[in-house]
Formats: sequence, C-alpha cells, structure tokens
Amino acid sequence: MIAENMVQLGQCKQIIREIAAYAGERRAVVGADNVFDFSIGNPSLPAPPRVNATIRRLLDEMDSVALHGYTAAVGDNRARAAVAARESERAGHAIPPDCVYMTCGAAASLTIAMKAIACPGDRMLVLAPFFPEYKVFVENAGAELGVVPPADLSMQPDLGALEAAIDERVKAVIINSPNNPSGAILTEQTLTAVGDILRAAREKYGHEIFIISDEPYRELVYDGKTVPFVPNFYDDTLICYSYSKSLSLPGERIGYVLVPPSVRDHDRVFAAVYGAGRSQGYVCAPSLMQYVVAECSQERPDVAGYDGNRRLLYTALTEMGFECVRPDGAFYLFVKAPGGSAAAFCERAKKYELMFVPADSFGVEGYVRIAYCTTEAMIRRSLPAFQKLADECFGRA
Amino acid sequence: MIAENMVQLGQCKQIIREIAAYAGERRAVVGADNVFDFSIGNPSLPAPPRVNATIRRLLDEMDSVALHGYTAAVGDNRARAAVAARESERAGHAIPPDCVYMTCGAAASLTIAMKAIACPGDRMLVLAPFFPEYKVFVENAGAELGVVPPADLSMQPDLGALEAAIDERVKAVIINSPNNPSGAILTEQTLTAVGDILRAAREKYGHEIFIISDEPYRELVYDGKTVPFVPNFYDDTLICYSYSKSLSLPGERIGYVLVPPSVRDHDRVFAAVYGAGRSQGYVCAPSLMQYVVAECSQERPDVAGYDGNRRLLYTALTEMGFECVRPDGAFYLFVKAPGGSAAAFCERAKKYELMFVPADSFGVEGYVRIAYCTTEAMIRRSLPAFQKLADECFGRA
Repeated sequence: MIAENMVQLGQCKQIIREIAAYAGERRAVVGADNVFDFSIGNPSLPAPPRVNATIRRLLDEMDSVALHGYTAAVGDNRARAAVAARESERAGHAIPPDCVYMTCGAAASLTIAMKAIACPGDRMLVLAPFFPEYKVFVENAGAELGVVPPADLSMQPDLGALEAAIDERVKAVIINSPNNPSGAILTEQTLTAVGDILRAAREKYGHEIFIISDEPYRELVYDGKTVPFVPNFYDDTLICYSYSKSLSLPGERIGYVLVPPSVRDHDRVFAAVYGAGRSQGYVCAPSLMQYVVAECSQERPDVAGYDGNRRLLYTALTEMGFECVRPDGAFYLFVKAPGGSAAAFCERAKKYELMFVPADSFGVEGYVRIAYCTTEAMIRRSLPAFQKLADECFGRA
Repeated sequence: MIAENMVQLGQCKQIIREIAAYAGERRAVVGADNVFDFSIGNPSLPAPPRVNATIRRLLDEMDSVALHGYTAAVGDNRARAAVAARESERAGHAIPPDCVYMTCGAAASLTIAMKAIACPGDRMLVLAPFFPEYKVFVENAGAELGVVPPADLSMQPDLGALEAAIDERVKAVIINSPNNPSGAILTEQTLTAVGDILRAAREKYGHEIFIISDEPYRELVYDGKTVPFVPNFYDDTLICYSYSKSLSLPGERIGYVLVPPSVRDHDRVFAAVYGAGRSQGYVCAPSLMQYVVAECSQERPDVAGYDGNRRLLYTALTEMGFECVRPDGAFYLFVKAPGGSAAAFCERAKKYELMFVPADSFGVEGYVRIAYCTTEAMIRRSLPAFQKLADECFGRA
C-alpha cells in the first residue's frame, strides 16, 4: 500500500540505460575501441572554457554565504536578466526579466509548466517522435498524453492528425524543436499552421490551449538554420529551456521556464508556474550555476564538432543504403530500420558491437536513434561495422 | 482554467519573505545598523573551507564532461558511499550505499519521499510546531495533513494526542529534529514512545505507517546533545537530509533520501522513491555538489558561532522576562508572545525595528520564531531594543 505507480516507474527498465550498461559489458570483453555505443545523448563536448573560469572567479570574488545561499525562488535577478536579454534578441522585442522562472533543468521546467496549467481530466498532445519521459511528466501533472504522428520523413507533424486529435479536453501541445530523436526543426510554415489550428480550437472550446516548447537543443543547429521564437507564432506559449546542451552542463540541472508577455493572464500563469515549482520542492535553481548563467548565457558549444559527426555519419549511412532523416539540429540521427522492426535491427546491430536505441518508445515504430554526440574517432572506427550491418540487412553479405 | 491551486500557491504571500522585504525598506530609512532582522533561517556561516577548496580541485583535476555530466539518477557512487559511511556511523551498523538516493535538497527529499508512499485518501501527521511548507508538500503527494500539538514548553509531542490522531488513513508521521522553529530535539524516550504507538497502529490497521524524518539541522546541536538515528527506534523510517545547514550550501540544492535496510519491502520502497523523483523531473542531483559531498560529508559548520548567539539571546531574553524554549539545536529561538497574540507581539516589536516571525503558520499559536543565524554584533546591538520591547510588554515602560 505505497504508491504503486511510483514503484512501477522506479522499477521499469529505462532502455537507454540498459543499452549503455550492455555497452559497458561488451567493452570489458572485446575492448573499448571495438564497441560503438551510440545510445546516450550525453554531450561529448566540454563546457565552454568561460564556464569553469567563471566558477573559479566567483569562488575568488564572491562571499561564500551569498554564493551558496538561497536565491529568490524565481531566480537570481542577474540570471533572469541575462535570460531575458537573450530571449529578447530571439523575439525581436523586449522580454522583461520578470517573465523568467529559473529551474533545475529541462525536466523540472517541463513538470512545472505542465503542473501549472493542468486541470483534472486534461489532455496534452505531443508531436511524435518524442522523448518518452514526456508521458511521465504529463501524468505527474494529472493529465493524459495524446500522440500526433509525423507526416513524413521530414518529421514535420501531420497537421490533419493534429487537428483531428484536438478536443475540448486538450490543454496543451508539447513541441520539441530541434527534436530528440529526429533532429528535425519545426519550420516557420509548420509553426504558422499549428498556431492557426490552436487559435481556432481555443476559439471553439473557449479555454486556454498552450504550446509547451521544449528547447534544450536550440543552439545545436546546422547549415545556418535557426529555431524560431515560438511565441511569435502563437501567443500562449511557455518556453522550457535547459543549459544541459548549450553549456554542456547536463548534470548541474540548470534551466528556466519563460512565460512571455504574450501569454494571456500572464501574471496568473507565472504565479502558477512558481506555485507548481514550490509544490514539488523546487526551492530555487542551484545558486552557483545561476551566477554562471548570468555571465555565460551567450556562450555557445563548439557546434562544428557535432556538425562534423553529423555529416560523417549521415553521408556514410545514406551511401550504405540506410534511409535517414537529415538532422537540422540536436545530435541524433533517426534511421529507418531495414525490415521494419526497430528491435530486430538493434539486435542485429549488436553482432557488430553497434548499439543504438529502438525508437518505438519515442512514438514512431520502425526507426532507431543513433546519438552522434560521441567522438569522431569512434564514428570512423564504427563505419566498417555499419558496412557489415548494411551488407547483411540489404542481402549483400 | 489553469491549475487554480498552483496559482494560489504562487500568489500567496510567504510571510517570512514579506518580513525580510520590510526589513530591507527599514534599512533604507533608519540605516542598516539600526534594523534587527531575525526573520530568515539562512545560514550566516560560510561553507567549511574544504568545500570551496574541493570545488577548485575538481575543476583542476576532473574532466569537464564528467564533472558537469549526468550522474546516475540515484546519485554518484562516491557520494552515495560517503553518505552511507556517515549514516552507518550514526546507526551503529552498516548502511549500504544502495540505500541512498541523492536529491536536490531537503524540500526535494520530502516531496519525493511523500509521493513515493502516498496513496489516494492518505493522511500524514506532523508534530507541531512545524515548517509550514510541509502542508504544501503533503498536498503535492495527494495526501492530507493532520497536526499533533506539543505537550508543553519542551516541545516534545503530546503522545496521547498522537495516538488519538492516528486512524486507518494515516500513512506517515513527519518529524523534524532538531526542530524548525523550536530548536527542540526529540528525545530517545519520545522516539521510543512514538515507535511503540506506530507499531501498534501498523498492527491494528494492517498497513505500512512510515516516519519521515526531516533532518537538515542534525549537526547543529549544542551542549553535547546528539540526534538519535531514528530507524533504530522505528524500522519504517525514511530519512530526508540536506547539506543546506551542515555545509552552508542552501542555494546549491543538495541532499538525499535514505531508505534504511530496516524498511519493510525495502527494494519496492526504494524503487518508489526513485520513481517519485523521476516523475517530478528530478533527473539527478547537481553533479558538482555530489562530488563535493563525496569529499566533504564529514565536515561540520562552526557550531560554536551559532551556540554563542544562542546563549547570548536566550540568556538576555529570559532575563528580560520573556518565556523561551531552550533550544538544543537548529538556530531558532521560540518565544512565547506576551499577551498571547503572536501577530500583535510582532507588530509591537517593529516599533523597535525588531523583526521576527509569528509562529501561527507553524501550527502553534502565541509564539514567535527568532532566527539567530545572524551576526553576534547584530544581536548585541539589538538588546536595548529587546529591553524596550520587554519594558512595554511587561508594563515597565
């Protein structure tokens, strides 16, 4: 008679961790250089040098009680101002610092944003493919997840399916652009169409419908692409951000929720965000990391490194005959499983010590996710294994 | 039609922050040296020197990707081992590291522990006086709070009232020793009696009843007092801890939940703790601070500084005629409001630029909380103001 759903959540195997553990076992058997683990989306680039330099300077210059003390629950004013300045640039108009609620990373941002807006019986829609933890977070908010499939290999949503999925119970649509696991960026055209659909639905059902925009990969974009400022396409958008990828600080748990001025009943929604953080025990975001953000929010990772990996792997796999989504951002390659079964394809790949994640749990069947946030050297070493896998898959063995 | 309870939680004034803001206004008017703000429980002692030295060394020696990367969701193995070693010492028997779930501080520990065990309709009891956020956390877990009053000025619980308050819906009793706001430590005698009551109730109702032991002040104890290892008195105890006070790191959000081996169905309960963290978006505890804990968990604050403040204030106020709970731990003095109304007493004190917190929201009427985690100099400067307040209260003006 304890919380059975929490027991199950704690006991259920997280497939990505299982694969990573298997990779560890294989390294012990065949040697680290002969195992090609593409399972985990952990940044392989170090934090920009200014991050650690800033930590050292803060230790030298700032009073220890202030440095490690509570900040305001909504965040340190300098950190909020730095976030607001950056978002103002993206928006093309001023975003005041009091729209910013600093959090312990993207997962915290998401659970807080969802809990702030969810009422009993609500549904939240997600555009597939999607990060599986969204389901956990939506259910934590007491809501129910609905899945909208992608239209085609471009991984833009099927707009007809989105329209059909919206009913009076839908309170939010969760988007993630650049997308984990496909690397797709939602285009301005898509966002305009999604905005039109949601405005019509809001009108029809007479209540709020939010976009929750999960943007941790926002700065990991290639070929000159950029990620649009979503509230410019739809007013009632909450932005959830993390510095996990842009500053390579995933373990430090630092991010924010932005409630832009365009959100209707802005102050009530912002109060609900603060209330939802408070209720879940988020007293404040880690103080030292808030001061790092205040000084480093304009820093960028060495995207060229990820881009090199992306080109290398996309070109090689495409030439071998695999069908791949060309990623515009993030650090994942989304590959169609020859034969149709992602699980069978992943099992087959293991013979060649290649490890990646079947994407069924991401809401799209028949694909795998290959995380290229690894070293270029490992990718180069892995190519003969991919070739053997291709030969087997395509009957050229 | 957003989450109205979250809006209200975000909008409701937190009295302690309001008093602190008022103190800021008064400083601008009468000068910082003439304002005596005893409202906030923010450690006034810096972190032990080894903390910042460890951060510097980690920056020098550890690979940045590892230092700032995700740890396992349950925590870094070295941090867990350090916690387990410390708890083993306290317990007098071995506590394995896999009983430790690292968290983002005590509030996170509490919301996670509560959500792990709460089923719909459950009640959780708290021993008054108690930290008001417990109510918020209990409600976040979908349970309902019940309050058990203290027996007398020793601030040990009224055991008869505890027994009477337990019914079949009670899933947990929350204890906090040393106590915020009274500074009381639950004695071994009290813990034995509470354990007996809960064992009988567990037997009677045939389901688990947990103690949730919130212990952030555990190392802030005086006169040679120690805080007992609660699971030695009652098997089904979950320990919630934070390094906010012992390492003076409140802003960094680092702590843990301990599910000791004595807990029945240990592995299921531990899984539920992990599941409850996961569902609320707690991906891992901040990585850099976990590595700090791994090396600094045996460090202690300069308790002598707090003890000096305690003696100074307790002696002075008692001599002036105020009735005070003699605190054995934490850094609060719990003072009976002359006249009976805490609010009226706090208002009266403001005339002398003295600011403290009426304890009605802590579940005990007619008391105020005076936080002495401030400078000795401020306390000395405040004594003439306290004298004037006493003279007015006791009709000697």
